Amino acid sequence: MSPAKALEPIAFSPVPLYTQVRETLRERILDGTYAPHAQLPSESEMVSLFKVSRITVRQALSDLQRENLIFKIPGKGTFVAKPKAFQHLGQLEGFAEAMERMGYEIRNQVTSHKTVPASPRVAQRLGLAEGNPVAQIKRVRHLNRAPVSYEVTYLPHAIGERLRQADLAGRDIFLILENDYGIALGHADLQIDAMLADEVLARALVVAEGAAVLRVERLTYTADGAPLDFEDLYFRGDAFQHRLRIARAIPSTKVNP
Amino acid sequence: MSPAKALEPIAFSPVPLYTQVRETLRERILDGTYAPHAQLPSESEMVSLFKVSRITVRQALSDLQRENLIFKIPGKGTFVAKPKAFQHLGQLEGFAEAMERMGYEIRNQVTSHKTVPASPRVAQRLGLAEGNPVAQIKRVRHLNRAPVSYEVTYLPHAIGERLRQADLAGRDIFLILENDYGIALGHADLQIDAMLADEVLARALVVAEGAAVLRVERLTYTADGAPLDFEDLYFRGDAFQHRLRIARAIPSTKVNP
Repeated sequence: MSPAKALEPIAFSPVPLYTQVRETLRERILDGTYAPHAQLPSESEMVSLFKVSRITVRQALSDLQRENLIFKIPGKGTFVAKPKAFQHLGQLEGFAEAMERMGYEIRNQVTSHKTVPASPRVAQRLGLAEGNPVAQIKRVRHLNRAPVSYEVTYLPHAIGERLRQADLAGRDIFLILENDYGIALGHADLQIDAMLADEVLARALVVAEGAAVLRVERLTYTADGAPLDFEDLYFRGDAFQHRLRIARAIPSTKVNP
Repeated sequence: MSPAKALEPIAFSPVPLYTQVRETLRERILDGTYAPHAQLPSESEMVSLFKVSRITVRQALSDLQRENLIFKIPGKGTFVAKPKAFQHLGQLEGFAEAMERMGYEIRNQVTSHKTVPASPRVAQRLGLAEGNPVAQIKRVRHLNRAPVSYEVTYLPHAIGERLRQADLAGRDIFLILENDYGIALGHADLQIDAMLADEVLARALVVAEGAAVLRVERLTYTADGAPLDFEDLYFRGDAFQHRLRIARAIPSTKVNP
């Protein structure tokens, strides 16, 4: 569909003009009229198509960019973002385990693997004394060669040392623990919120400082109920989402506190 | 504990100085050395306590602010943010239902309640024809009088009309549907990601434009499996988190696709 055909002048209404322009573009992106990676009309084209000012068009585009629906390439124009990759949270799974099933190529870049003294937070989560040595592994996880998450993992020191021989670039730590080390995993507690990318995250995830980041703090327990694997996971807000189905009735196998 | 006592000069190390300052402050906030709402030492105090430059202190504070661990009051200083309120995602619950149990005072500000033509996205989710009338209800939800989420709810038109007589300021729509209208709810599908606050969200949630927002798209089905209630929920990244416990083994009552 040509841009000119997709856009019609908007009649007067008490809703601000830029909101109307934004919602029109938003719906056309979400319903596929503008496909992923398609180029949007230029600002000048939108000015004449919508019969609004350039500042109105810019405000609408700025909002859509914040929502991660579009992205700009300087000197090239504005493009529709690709749909977000997603992981289901219904079952505890490693990233590669979950994403490979969906046909993605996964690659982990191990940026650091060392022994550090347990901070008060890490010690509390893993049930260790503060200052005790723990393994700290930092990885950038790539989907189809694009970075989507930055993960900082804390594990008991001895397991961290064993993992130095493991293929951390290609495999999930969960699967190595279970299949290679014979440690059965039980459940995990997650805390999910949103934050802005700081310098470290911006560099790791190849986003601007101040970009939206979905943060997950995950503490994974063994089947025996001992805390084993504590992680801070940071996902690109523009590239990844979590999905979850929850039931209204309390299931009999309910594990939530 | 006095600030002077909590801070010690940091010895040389290859980790950048601002990272060391940030991590030191971060741990002391997370372990409670600096309590919620406590004032941090001034920039000048930190310069002399940490033996670093003012720019280093500022970089550390800027990162902590992005992470929502601290906030600044111009002319007053820098303060530790209060711990985030949270809602468990293990079971489908309304916001008031979940939060009142934890002792919060809930209040909803209904900012709009009208009939709109179903957009392609809303029509697709609710299984309606595009353009058909649907109810659209916008609410800002307050915890202990502070705004934490902005919610845009779409419902069948007839239910929206009935809800005009309901106490939407005080009650969850879920409970009204179930207890007053006798509609049993079944499950909901959630999509969770992160975005930056646009102008509308900034105004509703009383945050700066560009602040971190946790977004949840939630489609709730009746017990019969018909889509009924479609919502865009936007939570303040600095004030709210979701928690979830997930099991490694697939439970027999698994509903996730």
